[in-house]
Amino acid sequence: MSGNTLGTLFCVTNFGESHGPAIGCVIDGCPPGMALSEADIQHELDRRRPGTSRHVTQRREPDAVQILSGVYEGRTTGTPIALLIHNQDQRSKDYGAIAQSFRPGHADYSYWHKYGLRDPRGGGRSSARLTAPTVAAGAVARKWLREKFGTELRACMTQLGELAIPFEGWEHVSHNPFFAPVADVQQYEDYMDQLRKAGDSCGARLRVQATGVPVGLGEPLYDRLDADIAHAMMGLNAVKGVEIGAGFASAAQRGTVHGDSLTPQGFASNHAGGILGGISTGQDIEVSIAIKPTSSIISPRQSIDVHGNSVEVVTKGRHDPCVGIRAAPIAEALLALVLMDHVLRHRAQCGDVAQEIGPIPARVP
Amino acid sequence: MSGNTLGTLFCVTNFGESHGPAIGCVIDGCPPGMALSEADIQHELDRRRPGTSRHVTQRREPDAVQILSGVYEGRTTGTPIALLIHNQDQRSKDYGAIAQSFRPGHADYSYWHKYGLRDPRGGGRSSARLTAPTVAAGAVARKWLREKFGTELRACMTQLGELAIPFEGWEHVSHNPFFAPVADVQQYEDYMDQLRKAGDSCGARLRVQATGVPVGLGEPLYDRLDADIAHAMMGLNAVKGVEIGAGFASAAQRGTVHGDSLTPQGFASNHAGGILGGISTGQDIEVSIAIKPTSSIISPRQSIDVHGNSVEVVTKGRHDPCVGIRAAPIAEALLALVLMDHVLRHRAQCGDVAQEIGPIPARVP
Amino acid sequence: MSGNTLGTLFCVTNFGESHGPAIGCVIDGCPPGMALSEADIQHELDRRRPGTSRHVTQRREPDAVQILSGVYEGRTTGTPIALLIHNQDQRSKDYGAIAQSFRPGHADYSYWHKYGLRDPRGGGRSSARLTAPTVAAGAVARKWLREKFGTELRACMTQLGELAIPFEGWEHVSHNPFFAPVADVQQYEDYMDQLRKAGDSCGARLRVQATGVPVGLGEPLYDRLDADIAHAMMGLNAVKGVEIGAGFASAAQRGTVHGDSLTPQGFASNHAGGILGGISTGQDIEVSIAIKPTSSIISPRQSIDVHGNSVEVVTKGRHDPCVGIRAAPIAEALLALVLMDHVLRHRAQCGDVAQEIGPIPARVP
Amino acid sequence: MSGNTLGTLFCVTNFGESHGPAIGCVIDGCPPGMALSEADIQHELDRRRPGTSRHVTQRREPDAVQILSGVYEGRTTGTPIALLIHNQDQRSKDYGAIAQSFRPGHADYSYWHKYGLRDPRGGGRSSARLTAPTVAAGAVARKWLREKFGTELRACMTQLGELAIPFEGWEHVSHNPFFAPVADVQQYEDYMDQLRKAGDSCGARLRVQATGVPVGLGEPLYDRLDADIAHAMMGLNAVKGVEIGAGFASAAQRGTVHGDSLTPQGFASNHAGGILGGISTGQDIEVSIAIKPTSSIISPRQSIDVHGNSVEVVTKGRHDPCVGIRAAPIAEALLALVLMDHVLRHRAQCGDVAQEIGPIPARVP
Repeated sequence: MSGNTLGTLFCVTNFGESHGPAIGCVIDGCPPGMALSEADIQHELDRRRPGTSRHVTQRREPDAVQILSGVYEGRTTGTPIALLIHNQDQRSKDYGAIAQSFRPGHADYSYWHKYGLRDPRGGGRSSARLTAPTVAAGAVARKWLREKFGTELRACMTQLGELAIPFEGWEHVSHNPFFAPVADVQQYEDYMDQLRKAGDSCGARLRVQATGVPVGLGEPLYDRLDADIAHAMMGLNAVKGVEIGAGFASAAQRGTVHGDSLTPQGFASNHAGGILGGISTGQDIEVSIAIKPTSSIISPRQSIDVHGNSVEVVTKGRHDPCVGIRAAPIAEALLALVLMDHVLRHRAQCGDVAQEIGPIPARVP
Repeated sequence: MSGNTLGTLFCVTNFGESHGPAIGCVIDGCPPGMALSEADIQHELDRRRPGTSRHVTQRREPDAVQILSGVYEGRTTGTPIALLIHNQDQRSKDYGAIAQSFRPGHADYSYWHKYGLRDPRGGGRSSARLTAPTVAAGAVARKWLREKFGTELRACMTQLGELAIPFEGWEHVSHNPFFAPVADVQQYEDYMDQLRKAGDSCGARLRVQATGVPVGLGEPLYDRLDADIAHAMMGLNAVKGVEIGAGFASAAQRGTVHGDSLTPQGFASNHAGGILGGISTGQDIEVSIAIKPTSSIISPRQSIDVHGNSVEVVTKGRHDPCVGIRAAPIAEALLALVLMDHVLRHRAQCGDVAQEIGPIPARVP
Repeated sequence: MSGNTLGTLFCVTNFGESHGPAIGCVIDGCPPGMALSEADIQHELDRRRPGTSRHVTQRREPDAVQILSGVYEGRTTGTPIALLIHNQDQRSKDYGAIAQSFRPGHADYSYWHKYGLRDPRGGGRSSARLTAPTVAAGAVARKWLREKFGTELRACMTQLGELAIPFEGWEHVSHNPFFAPVADVQQYEDYMDQLRKAGDSCGARLRVQATGVPVGLGEPLYDRLDADIAHAMMGLNAVKGVEIGAGFASAAQRGTVHGDSLTPQGFASNHAGGILGGISTGQDIEVSIAIKPTSSIISPRQSIDVHGNSVEVVTKGRHDPCVGIRAAPIAEALLALVLMDHVLRHRAQCGDVAQEIGPIPARVP
Repeated sequence: MSGNTLGTLFCVTNFGESHGPAIGCVIDGCPPGMALSEADIQHELDRRRPGTSRHVTQRREPDAVQILSGVYEGRTTGTPIALLIHNQDQRSKDYGAIAQSFRPGHADYSYWHKYGLRDPRGGGRSSARLTAPTVAAGAVARKWLREKFGTELRACMTQLGELAIPFEGWEHVSHNPFFAPVADVQQYEDYMDQLRKAGDSCGARLRVQATGVPVGLGEPLYDRLDADIAHAMMGLNAVKGVEIGAGFASAAQRGTVHGDSLTPQGFASNHAGGILGGISTGQDIEVSIAIKPTSSIISPRQSIDVHGNSVEVVTKGRHDPCVGIRAAPIAEALLALVLMDHVLRHRAQCGDVAQEIGPIPARVP
């Protein structure tokens, strides 16, 4: 109830701090009998790992995951799967300076007021480092969804700071450090280099997509599939906005335009983003998220200390100048976890999930 | 677990269908000793009620609420508060035509595939009518928050279809049927009249604000205050996008701009929308939501029936040409319910909520 | 979270007070497509109803149930099923005397200290009358379990005050007001008549059994099937003890005796009560519960008032001299609700429940 | 939802298997600011540890606990507290023989049928070894309850197999391997020695007590304090019965006897066991539990293998001849966890818990 568990039936309980001995999670509710190895999980962790390009934090963490329980002779047993990742490259001394003051735009202020104390080392619990266990848990959900339904998750960057990124194709995403769907990323490299020189940070916008989604996932009234997706995405560090399908553009649409008409061959469009009445239609699920600029920057900012005195804050330490850059695999993991949870919720009430009902949902290019 | 309960400690369980005998909810977890009468709740229900202007559905429902339990001699007892609203103006015959086919953009399709059957009368469970119990429960939360912290909730329309609505002031909102923050709404009246003549519908955009919010509400990691706000808002019928503070605009901001600097007098700006690291800062909470156009329209649409055959759908019955018009009191109620739940969650772990800590959070105009 | 909901996937949220306008519950999570009518539920309510013999409270309540939602054209839709029962025969004036003092052995004391106020009319929320909605919800679960697995629930009284009741056969239970498994109940009639004359009350002991239980229900580690049965039974008014299978007798048993040996034809005995390691084995589930004597008695008792002053308490009003007498249908309902919840939990994680696996579990006479 | 989490606000999520690399738990919801070290937890783990006398399993485990998160500079931060205990003395080869067959009275049978596979090494997930993380979490709850309310937990053995153990005084409990409240335990030593020679096992009965309990803990209707205690205790391996206060004896009591009368000085007796209407009265909480004999014994038993063929099972490996012997610290921990959870639940709804209300509850000798 203190908010460190995601999901109701496929439950991921996350623990750890940026500079503690270890971080990890416990997955409860995973179906038994699925082949699972540390390699299956490591692959996704490596996509999120820091220190992989000059545009992200230079903290060096192998993020090697260890399975402590829930797997016997290479198969899940249906008991809790505990995943452990040791922290290795802490530099806590960098944080002495800000231990008693609040970084503008950072959780320092709210944590201190909520709990009366906080672990300032690397942002403690509020660090984006805590997304690693989420990605690890997501890898387990992705494997199960892929094997059961052929569901696939992918995400790409559609905006980097002021720069909109055109969509040239998913095939480009894995070939550049920005998860950008374009062949040539030189201008984004230059943009980030200038930003770093300026000691500043920038925001970003991402598109997240699920394909091969079963029909019928989502619970009215409140726990709609889109509501739970919004909860998961807005729960990701630095996210300030979430859209499903047409999103904010739908405010300016007419009903005759927005409503996706149906044919015996499937839907003719996908303004709904794959969800109607909070329940999946079988079309691709389309999500867009906005990520704010990193609050930990080298440029001096006006702030106060814990006693309310005016101070100037300069953040040392190693930080991502744009947290959006590494957000793609995290957003994919979150979407996988929400889908996994709703598959189990659907099975509980309605029995096993049909894999082909009604018209084959049309894929809209 | 079937998604009809909102909240974890202040739990609202919603029941009913658009054309059933009654709708309502059970509130579990309300603190004991608060003065509460049906009039306290009716006031908010009346703001949401249908049939109050020519721009909303003409269904006539008094939405008279009855308190069945949890109140003794005018005070809450700490036991469940059951609220009942009888349906009175059903016209189920209007729905015979669409019982076997799917309205484009409507939950018909997904409900039918999820459950294998559905109540088509007035949209059954997927009807916006089910927001009435939410508003009723929200009224209880609002009263408690107001008396305890002076917290106030308000919402206004900032966009109607293609028309952006400038913000002239909160004082105008209660004087026009659009909850628009402007003195003169003639152009919006005209816009809606044309829309109705065209047999079409439109979307909208709303701003929702909470003032007098205690510092420290919200649970890292996953159940952040903004995550739960996003869940509640995206769980509202027809919502396709949610923003907190600067929202999508933050993607294009620099860290030096976005991060709200602090002074001994408080925050100098509110790009965060009152939430940092998922925890309230005491500033106003600022939310923006996008609402899609109504899917039930008189214009003929291409669709299929339950057998997959091509059909043309025309929706009779009485519907809101813009569901966004009546959404303001609902969005306020949802925000109140999320805040109430997090106040109780904070009390559980950290003890009673401090009402003044740190600098007085600056109100940003 | 305030404890008025039973179950995690088949959720029953109970509301109301003994002398309020109505009592009832909302069932969330019921599988769609099951035929359900008010008659299906009324049958079970009638077995629990007050005023059916001179040995129970003389309050006259028809306990007529109304289905407010979740059923369309005679079938469950998968949406919340709200059940309403109007109170009709309140006599609140009887309670003026004890409004300011505490009945020994009654919840008066603890409610007043917990909430700072209480509804004294008929015990308010702590009245056994609130078991009616539990029985109503249990009727829905029983019907589903019967149709799906042939599961049956039954209970009988095995002790009435000082009198042990021998087990002659289940067929007798429905033919006497005590739910006693014996042909001749004259001595129990006489016992109760003397007790009433003495202005006293007595306790009882019941046996509860489930037959046709699927194998594999129950969740290690903490939410074992037996743990959830104990929670449900101990949550029933006046219950002070719960046993599974051999229960307290197992403390004196040797491992060579207690452990039920297995043969290709099934188990050779059932000391386990149908549950091993917290998971059902497919044998009959055997539960025994102890019920304390009613605390509301006409005999004068020494107590204190809300100011701590010494007072003598005499309880007027109409009460069951032995609450155990009407407990059989309630205990059956609780066991049905626990089994139903665990069937859905099993389906969520492990897929649909196998109906015949391993050896046919032997029925032990 | 797979049952590996205990508590709703003070949530303990348990993971691991008997012969896996490690076991442990994550505590979510612990109030911030409490001093906490590994030594505080180790003390309780050492009381439960195996290999401490010839009457318990000879497996040698230091059960050294490591705090991975949630504590900064010696104080709890309000974030999840992850506790890790490495397994060191596994002897998995002992279990090859029973991997394909079911021990009578053991979870082998039900796990295999539920999950379709199982980890047979040391009983895998069903091993009593998994009570260690529960004890560790309980140590955190005990410390908080002690510092806040002066609450103390204690347990003793009241029956060992056929032998009833008289109550001479709590002071004896820590001076013998049986947690027996008597000065001379020679007869119990002899009894266990004979049992071991016979290759058999026995059951036991324990008394568990909490003193210094705040008034007002417990949630009607279903999540009563006694209901949650019953859930926790029946969820402990091998427990087959739970009593509160007078327990099963109350079935034979009259209302004039059972109901604890009140005086300005407090209660005159404690048949209620400190709980009325599911809510604590401030008197001592008195619980009694029955523990069945260990199912893993060296004596040959008739059983079947996974193919349903008749086999004779002899259990090698190291086992407790009476699991009740080490159960005292575990039962104390479970009671502490339930009380802790209900303190937080009470704070959420009713605000901070009063420490002295009404008459000082009398301690009954």
